[in-house]
Amino acid sequence: MIQSTQQLYARYVAITQKAADFNGAAAVLGWDQEVYMPEGGAGTRARQLSTLATTAHELLTSTEYGAVLQDLAAKDGLTAVETANIMRSLQDYERNTKLPANFVAELSEQTSVCFQAWAAARTSNNFATYAPHLERMIALKKRQADLVGYEGHPYNALVDEYEPGANVKMLDALFSTIGEEIKPLTARISSCTQVDDTCLHQHFDRQSQWDFSIKVLQLMGYDFKRGRQDYAPHPFTTSFGANDVRVTTRVDEQNFGYMLWSTIHEGGHALYEQGLPQSQYGLPVGSAASLGVHESQSRLWENCIGRSGWLWLKLYPELQSTFPSQLGRVSFETFYRAINRVAPSFIRTEADELTYHFHVKVRYEIEKQLIAEPTNIMELPALWNSLYQEYLGITPESDTVGVLQDVHWAHGSFGYFPTYSLGSLYAAQYYQYAMQQMPDIANAMQQANFEPMLRWLREHIHGYGRTFTAEELCKRITGESLNVTHFIRYATEKYDSIYH
Amino acid sequence: MIQSTQQLYARYVAITQKAADFNGAAAVLGWDQEVYMPEGGAGTRARQLSTLATTAHELLTSTEYGAVLQDLAAKDGLTAVETANIMRSLQDYERNTKLPANFVAELSEQTSVCFQAWAAARTSNNFATYAPHLERMIALKKRQADLVGYEGHPYNALVDEYEPGANVKMLDALFSTIGEEIKPLTARISSCTQVDDTCLHQHFDRQSQWDFSIKVLQLMGYDFKRGRQDYAPHPFTTSFGANDVRVTTRVDEQNFGYMLWSTIHEGGHALYEQGLPQSQYGLPVGSAASLGVHESQSRLWENCIGRSGWLWLKLYPELQSTFPSQLGRVSFETFYRAINRVAPSFIRTEADELTYHFHVKVRYEIEKQLIAEPTNIMELPALWNSLYQEYLGITPESDTVGVLQDVHWAHGSFGYFPTYSLGSLYAAQYYQYAMQQMPDIANAMQQANFEPMLRWLREHIHGYGRTFTAEELCKRITGESLNVTHFIRYATEKYDSIYH
Repeated sequence: MIQSTQQLYARYVAITQKAADFNGAAAVLGWDQEVYMPEGGAGTRARQLSTLATTAHELLTSTEYGAVLQDLAAKDGLTAVETANIMRSLQDYERNTKLPANFVAELSEQTSVCFQAWAAARTSNNFATYAPHLERMIALKKRQADLVGYEGHPYNALVDEYEPGANVKMLDALFSTIGEEIKPLTARISSCTQVDDTCLHQHFDRQSQWDFSIKVLQLMGYDFKRGRQDYAPHPFTTSFGANDVRVTTRVDEQNFGYMLWSTIHEGGHALYEQGLPQSQYGLPVGSAASLGVHESQSRLWENCIGRSGWLWLKLYPELQSTFPSQLGRVSFETFYRAINRVAPSFIRTEADELTYHFHVKVRYEIEKQLIAEPTNIMELPALWNSLYQEYLGITPESDTVGVLQDVHWAHGSFGYFPTYSLGSLYAAQYYQYAMQQMPDIANAMQQANFEPMLRWLREHIHGYGRTFTAEELCKRITGESLNVTHFIRYATEKYDSIYH
Repeated sequence: MIQSTQQLYARYVAITQKAADFNGAAAVLGWDQEVYMPEGGAGTRARQLSTLATTAHELLTSTEYGAVLQDLAAKDGLTAVETANIMRSLQDYERNTKLPANFVAELSEQTSVCFQAWAAARTSNNFATYAPHLERMIALKKRQADLVGYEGHPYNALVDEYEPGANVKMLDALFSTIGEEIKPLTARISSCTQVDDTCLHQHFDRQSQWDFSIKVLQLMGYDFKRGRQDYAPHPFTTSFGANDVRVTTRVDEQNFGYMLWSTIHEGGHALYEQGLPQSQYGLPVGSAASLGVHESQSRLWENCIGRSGWLWLKLYPELQSTFPSQLGRVSFETFYRAINRVAPSFIRTEADELTYHFHVKVRYEIEKQLIAEPTNIMELPALWNSLYQEYLGITPESDTVGVLQDVHWAHGSFGYFPTYSLGSLYAAQYYQYAMQQMPDIANAMQQANFEPMLRWLREHIHGYGRTFTAEELCKRITGESLNVTHFIRYATEKYDSIYH
């Protein structure tokens, strides 16, 4: 039976969206696991999640799906959106089918084992108990790189999964420029009078912080009819479809920054997910472009807007009246400087927007080496510490706040870290472009009105989903590729002014 | 290839538990939908739920599954538990495969349509807009009865789905006895001085009620490490496996009874689910025996224990100190009488434990007629009202509090209602048996210690799952079949004493 293009495309949509249903259900189960599940539920939940993931994977690697995609790729008469979907799905299919089922199962099993070992080792500050599991994970990731294939450095095969188009050559250049340009800036800062951020380290009660976090999300334009916020120990954003995108935050009553930055960061991710085309549910055009683009959205809100004066123009008086005894006598300038304090630290997730890149660079350099060269796994903590000393000028007090701090390697996520820096850099480039080229956006921002900014992001980024790669998007919007000088200029102007 | 019995049984377990994973995931999505989902999520959630349900159904009606079951049913060497699983799964398979896929899809679609129409009609008190959809649903249920097959009355085919073994002959006898025996009791009650329950209708603040509900669940023995309670407008219990069984409750600040009865009722259901054999996840022996047995557990806790003096021996002083201004001067006896007030009412879910059976009887008589005889659908409200007048002596003020009050028919759940009465009757029989035959249980109860009662239920009911039917369980435990006289005696003694 010969099927028409429409029939074939409908079949493609049916299979892809069915897989999305399983993945969306898994996301609900994952969300619940992090925020509400009683401890007893863990075992059953793990097997339910595994069944959902396996079923989605089977659909998306099936022979029928491959045939439908190949047929459609050869057809004329598809719309631009349909063509983008088929092109991306075909890329995914080709990537997914390169990994044999038994390899996927082995990787999944090793991820569970490795995660448990990592969590225990981190708690007990005992890298040695985790080392053999990590070593085995690295061996699997090397094999994955070989199975997927690559040009140049084997790391390219891994980073491409998270950031299509990114590679070692481009990342080396990027981190090199960051090192050269940001190092002198952080050196200047460390020679200045240090910023006092004690105003953020007072007692702020939980409920008031929570209420304030809701206000922040509302001001950003997060749609509570298509989402909600809950508490989670490790904040995250998750989407079950563009009409149900949830954020989580954490509250530390002694540190106002925990709630604040996690709320704004996750809010930025969530605005992206809420802005994806709803009609393209489960299809590439209904999905995020890449992790780097995702991070560009969270970082644009967290750093460029959240640590700017614009947001606080409106929010600081409200914050003062919420916490009069803590902040009533703290001037706007003192608060502004406090939220922009720069200082080297051990923990990546708590780093300021400048030293953050050095945290990422440490991980990037180590990952590249682990994938390409035989490495004695027991030397990893020393390597980590020496790179922290070299890039940040400090040596972690323990492996728990050093090489054991991140879950990524235990999860098998090699190649993920660079997307954090890429996101910050894209964010600065987009932000500067918008503020300089779009007077309406800049003017509104000066009135603490973020609606034009969000509308612009929706129109130029969110609405396209995965139609374009991060690089293509960047060129379309700003007229040039990712260019680190935008971040450098943004950072230099901002921090030279703060640190005089 | 000839497979060993063990291999075949392992294959049976794998398929059945995989289906349970999909159903368990659907239960998580359903729970979230009722308690936390933002309104925007409804559309995507519906399609995800549908995909999960369809996938589980396909597994459990597959030719392979049928062959595995048939092969195993013919094998020797299975354990008693394995045999029970195979026997029940084969019954399910035979029932499920009697319904063609297009009929299942049609029923599912009509359920969505009918539910929407019902909800709108109930809100606007307009039966006529719902009538054609209900009529079509009734036609489908008649067809279902024919497809499934039955002996005697076609209603038997439907009730059997919820209560295996129950039938019209048995239910007619049962409701007839209830009518004959309870009617004189409620008549005596209505001629007495009425009980004053105004003490329950004061202002009780939400948070204190919530905290109290947690205490109630703890006293019952509900395991919070394997469950949690949340708010829901229509309270329910749901299980994602015996290690994650969740309850919900509602709070009305002007009516203490709403929270109280929903918490205890759902707590009773949850104790059953938490007590099912964990090693039998997703298999019949790991599942509830029937809706009637399920309801026997909720009613035993709600009525026999929750409306008894035993529970309040311990809880009433705590309740008084929680609400001193409302209950400080209300005597134990006044409170006890208030929670046992008997009076005819329109709404089934708010009825006392005596008149409750007449609410069920109205629905049972109507269902039987709708399935067996041609009925003018527009006469349904009048039929409903005349039966309320006949059985309860009152006529509903509107269809919203009359024929439109329950969701069951819109959901296509014909044959479900009788299980509510069956549950109450089993509960009274179990309760009386335990209190009379097991001195340890009765003694502990008099110290407000419910642990021996729970242990007994675990050992004799929960731990068997679906190994036995409700009738078989009842005979094994009490030495006789369901016998209404136990409920009659329990009710007569209790209420003659309350109403002197």
